[in-house]
Amino acid sequence: MTAAGASDSGSADSGAADLAEVPLPADTVGLLEGLASTRSIRRYRDEPVSPEALRAMLFAATRAPSGSNRQPFRFVVLQDGPGALEARRLIGEAARHFWAEKVARDGYERGSGTDASSPKARMARTMRRYVDEFERAPVVVLPCLVRYRAADPSSGSSIYPACQNLLLAARAQGYGGVITGFHAMVADELASVLGLPPEAWIAATITLGRPEGGHGPVRRRPLAELVYADHWGQAPDWAVDPPGTRHTSAGPPRSAPTP
Amino acid sequence: MTAAGASDSGSADSGAADLAEVPLPADTVGLLEGLASTRSIRRYRDEPVSPEALRAMLFAATRAPSGSNRQPFRFVVLQDGPGALEARRLIGEAARHFWAEKVARDGYERGSGTDASSPKARMARTMRRYVDEFERAPVVVLPCLVRYRAADPSSGSSIYPACQNLLLAARAQGYGGVITGFHAMVADELASVLGLPPEAWIAATITLGRPEGGHGPVRRRPLAELVYADHWGQAPDWAVDPPGTRHTSAGPPRSAPTP
Repeated sequence: MTAAGASDSGSADSGAADLAEVPLPADTVGLLEGLASTRSIRRYRDEPVSPEALRAMLFAATRAPSGSNRQPFRFVVLQDGPGALEARRLIGEAARHFWAEKVARDGYERGSGTDASSPKARMARTMRRYVDEFERAPVVVLPCLVRYRAADPSSGSSIYPACQNLLLAARAQGYGGVITGFHAMVADELASVLGLPPEAWIAATITLGRPEGGHGPVRRRPLAELVYADHWGQAPDWAVDPPGTRHTSAGPPRSAPTP
Repeated sequence: MTAAGASDSGSADSGAADLAEVPLPADTVGLLEGLASTRSIRRYRDEPVSPEALRAMLFAATRAPSGSNRQPFRFVVLQDGPGALEARRLIGEAARHFWAEKVARDGYERGSGTDASSPKARMARTMRRYVDEFERAPVVVLPCLVRYRAADPSSGSSIYPACQNLLLAARAQGYGGVITGFHAMVADELASVLGLPPEAWIAATITLGRPEGGHGPVRRRPLAELVYADHWGQAPDWAVDPPGTRHTSAGPPRSAPTP
């Protein structure tokens, strides 16, 4: 089977054994360009992700660094098997429950939220659809950290670089995704359904698929607010955004953490 | 000043104000290629990193995702200012202390460690030089997480993707680096020297520079050991390494965590 043949297949069964002979897809996006243009994608076309594209994403993920190159990352990919369907349902229900509570608590339907064109209302529409259609995301990946000592905040240095590589490799192939924390509310049930051992800690829920519509720009705070030299708060004179950079203020109100 | 002019400068002072007119460097590495070939670099040439290259690295870092796009990441860049020199000395001494203890505890000079050509002995030589010359690394970056709630293992999802972007953007420009945890032993002293506010948590110590010699291949465990579908331990048939992949077993013995 050729690379093109594998790429045409939406099933994990067809032709995958031949991937040992198939190189990774050729690059069409540059590295710096990809880093600057990968943004969270929450709306997907109803289109499967080919085994070849998935392989390239997971290969990139597992090239990430980890402490002492111990490689404590494992990725449970959820498509349409029985465990996958049950796990997706559990996470989808948790996501809808979380979002309904957040809308009520943080007043997404009050104030500027009543203006359909406001950023708040747009975000609410995107999130509503995301949680409502969670089970239809083409692929869900649960990156897990295999703990050999108690997890602490620095443990993430051996799993989240791999998550970022996964999202960048999706972008490289015209796919997109987003990191969420919706699994946290149903972690025990997921461990049971998916057979996770006690040492496996689910670090994220990542959904992936072909973006619907345009990506929109990546927006961040100005570089000089985020980069310091020699002392906290002291921006170096080279911390200057390149031409064309789009800005945003930082996230939602502090009272409204999203998992 | 042209982009080439900025690129020729090793000082953070010269021409940096003009970077607002200078686009990011043109890509010479593809996105998938960069993801597959970025490895930890611990040996650096004695060569400064230009402000233009640093700007591109930090710009890429700050494009990373974070929970609710809250952007709680800050990067303290240590070059040759008074705070930087003192902070580098503190971390370098901690690194040398850590490594000396680890060599004794884990028997790096016993068993296969006495064979100069063994992987164990090679790793020991690299680490010895890395800690001995820590203060000479061209750039040290301390990525910090600004906490708005207590840090837990999932907090890393808002800082380590940015660290990985930083390392990938270094690779894009012919530089390299490594994530370490040596700051942890002197975190309070560093906070004092660098004026970190109480809510800033240092997530990593990243050293950066122009690699000395070749990079060597990225080695990982076979993909089928790291990627599962539908259930823990169940590799999908597409989890197959592409041709030419180099393998390694997982890290050092469990008794020997490196920070």
